[in-house]
Amino acid sequence: MTDHDRDAVLHAVHQVLQARKGADPSSSYVAGLYGKGLDTILKKVGEEATETVIAAKGGDRDQVVYETADLWFHTLVMLAALDLGPADVLAELERRFGLSGLDEKASRSS
Amino acid sequence: MTDHDRDAVLHAVHQVLQARKGADPSSSYVAGLYGKGLDTILKKVGEEATETVIAAKGGDRDQVVYETADLWFHTLVMLAALDLGPADVLAELERRFGLSGLDEKASRSS
Amino acid sequence: MTDHDRDAVLHAVHQVLQARKGADPSSSYVAGLYGKGLDTILKKVGEEATETVIAAKGGDRDQVVYETADLWFHTLVMLAALDLGPADVLAELERRFGLSGLDEKASRSS
Amino acid sequence: MTDHDRDAVLHAVHQVLQARKGADPSSSYVAGLYGKGLDTILKKVGEEATETVIAAKGGDRDQVVYETADLWFHTLVMLAALDLGPADVLAELERRFGLSGLDEKASRSS
Repeated sequence: MTDHDRDAVLHAVHQVLQARKGADPSSSYVAGLYGKGLDTILKKVGEEATETVIAAKGGDRDQVVYETADLWFHTLVMLAALDLGPADVLAELERRFGLSGLDEKASRSS
Repeated sequence: MTDHDRDAVLHAVHQVLQARKGADPSSSYVAGLYGKGLDTILKKVGEEATETVIAAKGGDRDQVVYETADLWFHTLVMLAALDLGPADVLAELERRFGLSGLDEKASRSS
Repeated sequence: MTDHDRDAVLHAVHQVLQARKGADPSSSYVAGLYGKGLDTILKKVGEEATETVIAAKGGDRDQVVYETADLWFHTLVMLAALDLGPADVLAELERRFGLSGLDEKASRSS
Repeated sequence: MTDHDRDAVLHAVHQVLQARKGADPSSSYVAGLYGKGLDTILKKVGEEATETVIAAKGGDRDQVVYETADLWFHTLVMLAALDLGPADVLAELERRFGLSGLDEKASRSS
């Protein structure tokens, strides 16, 4: 598998998420999240971020991969809920690189 | 720009991050993060997750894209610090889809 | 020092916070937080929670005390910003105990 | 009820938590948390911090009180798991006040 094939996974996930936005909340985990609303989705984003931090601090690399996948997945659910998608976020990352790379980030106030 | 071109951004960021891991901590924002160590990187992951939640709850879609980019960026910094990369996370997401899709996720205990 | 004296610290902090709500943002750290607004305060709550988790996972008990103090402190700043105070939160904790103790918590859906 | 009575709630909760540390994990919510271990407790701390942020950002003051109570409660569970208690955290807050008040906080690098 090439990197390009792997990258396409974000867009494939997004397509599935979009398709499930109008589905019966009982039909899948994702449809259930959409049915419960944005607050529930955001709670999952915070929860998975904490689990990623715990896994990384614990030094379990397999667990880090697993929890980061959960975190990215739930950010994709959030983006779809707001009619956004991975292309928006990747374009923002590219913009930072395309203009002046990571140096732009370094100059930010935070 | 095609989706494939956009997706390649994750890998491009990863390449830059790998190159900066051994650099002088004062030479860039990223090199500074690596110099401060894993705890500082993990604090940024938690911080950016919170900022993403605040932006989404506030309904500012541009801010959501910006903060999600920050969150993904700092998870990439974390992955590189642990000698992991986006390919590992994307492979995990694909595995979930390839085997049984999001239904596998639905069956998880959490 | 008795436990009662120590407990009074939360209320003492709250009194100081209330007094600084209208102060010049450049006059103190707290006044600066109020000047920046609720989002900045909430970012600190999320940040300090992550730092608490990292300290606990790292097993550094002194650091856990330090970070938990930071976390409680910033929740007190948040409460004051919303015209709430520690008495409200302590009353809620007492209500849970007074009615049916921690069993009530056990029956919650989350 | 006086403020002193209310403050004593933290210590009352701590006493209950200590008593439940050795109990059968199926006997109560808290005993179940201790049975699952520190990672599960820390996940709850991160989760409740996120819920507090969401409630505050949403402007629901009752919900803020409820979620802050949950957050403080789970930090107390964490402290007890590490053989610490609210007295340690309150002493740290008092130390900051007793020495030089919140100005000390203002001088911190973060």
